[in-house]
Amino acid sequence: MTNSPIITLTTDFGVRDWYVAAMKGVILRLAPEAQLVDVSHEVPPQSVAGAAYLLESLCDTFPAETIHLAVVDPGVGTERLAIAVATPHGTFVGPDNGIFTPFLDSAYTAVELANPRYQRSPVSRTFHGRDIFAPAAGHLAAGIPLLEFGPRVEAPQLLRELLPTAEGGTVQGTIRHIDHFGNAISNILEGEIARDADIMVAGTTIHGVAAHYQERRVAALIGSSGYLEIAIGNGSAAQTLGIRTGDKVVVRMRG
Amino acid sequence: MTNSPIITLTTDFGVRDWYVAAMKGVILRLAPEAQLVDVSHEVPPQSVAGAAYLLESLCDTFPAETIHLAVVDPGVGTERLAIAVATPHGTFVGPDNGIFTPFLDSAYTAVELANPRYQRSPVSRTFHGRDIFAPAAGHLAAGIPLLEFGPRVEAPQLLRELLPTAEGGTVQGTIRHIDHFGNAISNILEGEIARDADIMVAGTTIHGVAAHYQERRVAALIGSSGYLEIAIGNGSAAQTLGIRTGDKVVVRMRG
Amino acid sequence: MTNSPIITLTTDFGVRDWYVAAMKGVILRLAPEAQLVDVSHEVPPQSVAGAAYLLESLCDTFPAETIHLAVVDPGVGTERLAIAVATPHGTFVGPDNGIFTPFLDSAYTAVELANPRYQRSPVSRTFHGRDIFAPAAGHLAAGIPLLEFGPRVEAPQLLRELLPTAEGGTVQGTIRHIDHFGNAISNILEGEIARDADIMVAGTTIHGVAAHYQERRVAALIGSSGYLEIAIGNGSAAQTLGIRTGDKVVVRMRG
Repeated sequence: MTNSPIITLTTDFGVRDWYVAAMKGVILRLAPEAQLVDVSHEVPPQSVAGAAYLLESLCDTFPAETIHLAVVDPGVGTERLAIAVATPHGTFVGPDNGIFTPFLDSAYTAVELANPRYQRSPVSRTFHGRDIFAPAAGHLAAGIPLLEFGPRVEAPQLLRELLPTAEGGTVQGTIRHIDHFGNAISNILEGEIARDADIMVAGTTIHGVAAHYQERRVAALIGSSGYLEIAIGNGSAAQTLGIRTGDKVVVRMRG
Repeated sequence: MTNSPIITLTTDFGVRDWYVAAMKGVILRLAPEAQLVDVSHEVPPQSVAGAAYLLESLCDTFPAETIHLAVVDPGVGTERLAIAVATPHGTFVGPDNGIFTPFLDSAYTAVELANPRYQRSPVSRTFHGRDIFAPAAGHLAAGIPLLEFGPRVEAPQLLRELLPTAEGGTVQGTIRHIDHFGNAISNILEGEIARDADIMVAGTTIHGVAAHYQERRVAALIGSSGYLEIAIGNGSAAQTLGIRTGDKVVVRMRG
Repeated sequence: MTNSPIITLTTDFGVRDWYVAAMKGVILRLAPEAQLVDVSHEVPPQSVAGAAYLLESLCDTFPAETIHLAVVDPGVGTERLAIAVATPHGTFVGPDNGIFTPFLDSAYTAVELANPRYQRSPVSRTFHGRDIFAPAAGHLAAGIPLLEFGPRVEAPQLLRELLPTAEGGTVQGTIRHIDHFGNAISNILEGEIARDADIMVAGTTIHGVAAHYQERRVAALIGSSGYLEIAIGNGSAAQTLGIRTGDKVVVRMRG
C-alpha cells in the first residue's frame, strides 16, 4: 500500500470565490485519494516573489514526493510557459515566471506542460489554474511520468530580485514578505551576515542581531525560515516602522 | 474499492469561529473517509444569490457523485424547508430558499430533510448547519438513499432575480458577484449576447465584448465561468467604477 | 481497518503565511492518512481565552479519539511547558497556558512533551508549532502512547478569567468572543441564569433572555454553544453596541 499523494496549493486567488475549489475538483477527479493542503490563497496579488518565499520556507517540512501547485500568474494568457519541475525538495507545478527560483540551484528536471492530453479542454484564456496546472498536478499525483507532459525546459525563468548582493562588509537585500504578525522578513540568510552588525531598513537602524523576540522592542533576528527579519515582541514591526514589501535592507558588519 | 465521497462546503459563516469545524466534525463521525473541500465561507452575509453563483461555477469540475453542502440561510428558525436535491451536476444539501436555482432546470429529485433519524438531537433553533444539513451530508456520503430523508419536494424555491430578461436587442441583468480581483460578474451568459454591443453598468458604457483582459483598461469580457464580467487588467473594476453586487447591467446589441 | 485519525488545528497564525502548512507537512510525514480539519487560524493574536472558547464549543461534535492541536502561544521561548492532555472530549496538544481549561474538570491525563525523540531537531525558539506541537500530534495519530512523550503534569495551568462569578441574584461574566456575524458571546452558561433577568453590557441594559434572534432588535439569548450571547437579527450587535472581547457582562435575576 502506498500513501496518498500530497498536493499543496499556493495562489493569490483569495477565499471569496470558486476558483480554488474548482482546481480541487479537477484534481480530485484525477487523484481521488490526494491529501490537499492549502498553503495560502492570500499571496499579495501577482507577488511572484512572495509565493516563492512561502514555498521555500515550507517545502522541506513535506515529504519529497509532495506536489506543490503554485498559481501566481500575472502573465496568464501571454506567451509565458506552463511548467512542472521535479527537484529534491518536491515537484512544483505552475507558470514559468520565476516562482520556483529557490529550487533551481540543485539538480532538477523541468518540462513544459504542453501535452493537451493532460489539460482540460478547451483551455480558457484566463484560468490556467483550472485548465492546465490543476490537471497536471492531478495527473502527476496519479502517477503519469513527468516527461509525458511535454518537452524539457533547460533553463526556467529566475527571479533575480530574490538574491541579496554582498560587497566588502555590507550585504544588501530586500523585504520579501510581511507576515500575519507584522514581522518583516528579508531575503538575507543567517549564514550571510555576522551577529555584530548594523541593520538599516525604512529609515531605522538596529544594532546587532538579537537571539530572540524582545518584549515591545524592535529587533533584527533570524526567523524560523532562516532569514533575517525585523520584529517587535507582541507588536507589528511593519506597522510601527512603516516597512513594506520590496523595501531595501542593508546589513553592515562591524569590526 | 470505491473512492472516498467528496463533500464541498459553502457558507457565510466566516473563518473566525467554530461553526464550520463543527459541521465537519458531524460529517466525519458519519463518513470518516470523506474528502472535505471548502468552497468559501466568505459568501457575503445572507447572499443566497452569491452562493448560487459559486456552486454553479464550480460544480462541473467535481465528479457528479459529489455532495455540495451550502448553508446561507437567512430563514433559519422559520418555516423554510431543509432539502436535499439530486441532480446531474451533483447532490445539493441546504435550505430551500432558492440557493439551488441553477440546478433545477434539468431532471432532479428533491426531498425534505424531515426524518429525525438523520438529524442531530436536539435540533437547535439557530444552527441547522450542524444539526440538520451536516448530518444529511454525512449520511448521504455514508450511503443512505435520498428518499429515506423525507417526503419529496415537487417544486423547490426559485430565485427569480438570477435570470436576466431580454427584449428586442437589449438584455438586462444584474451583477451577482464581485470577485477577489475586483472583477464584477453578471448573470448574463455568453450565448445571450453578441460581441458587438454596448454594455452599461454603474453609469459607465463599455463598447464591445473584448476577447481578453486588457492591461489597465476597463473591458467587458466572458469570464471563466461563462458569464459576462467587467474587468480591468491588474486592477479592480468594482472599485474603479463603483460597481456593487445587485447593480443593473444593460447590454444593447448594435446593428 | 481503522478510520483515519482526525487532527484539528486552531491557531492565531492567520492564513497569509507558510506557518500552518508547515505544521501540516510535519504531521503528514508522521500520519499520512490523517484527516486535517482547520478550526480557525484567525484567533485574535495571543487570545488564549478565545481559542479555549472555540475548542470547547466544537470538540463534542468530533469523535472522542480526535486530536486537537491548538497553538496560541504568547509564551513561546519562555519556561512554559508544552503538553498533551487526554480527556473524554478528545486529546489536546499545545502550550500549558490555560488554553485547555474547559477540559480539566473531568478525568484527564496530562504529560509534558519533553521527549526529544518526538520533536523536530533542532527545536527553534520561535516556532514550537512546527517543532514540538505538530510532531506530537502526528506521533499521537500514528499510535505512540501518551506516556511516551514525557512525565505527567499533575495540574496544567487554568485560565481563571474563563469562569463567571455568582453572588446573590447576580452573575458576573465577560465577553469571550465576537463572532463573524457580530454576536457577542459571554462565558455565562444557560444553567447559571434565569430567563427573567436584566442583562447589562457595554452601557446597554437588555430585559429578559429571548427565545430566538429578533429581526433588527437587540436580544440576549442562548447561542448554539450554550452560552449567553448578545445578538441582533441581521446585524452586528458588537458594532451597534460597541461591545468588545473582555467586556464585563452582568446578569441580575428579577423577582
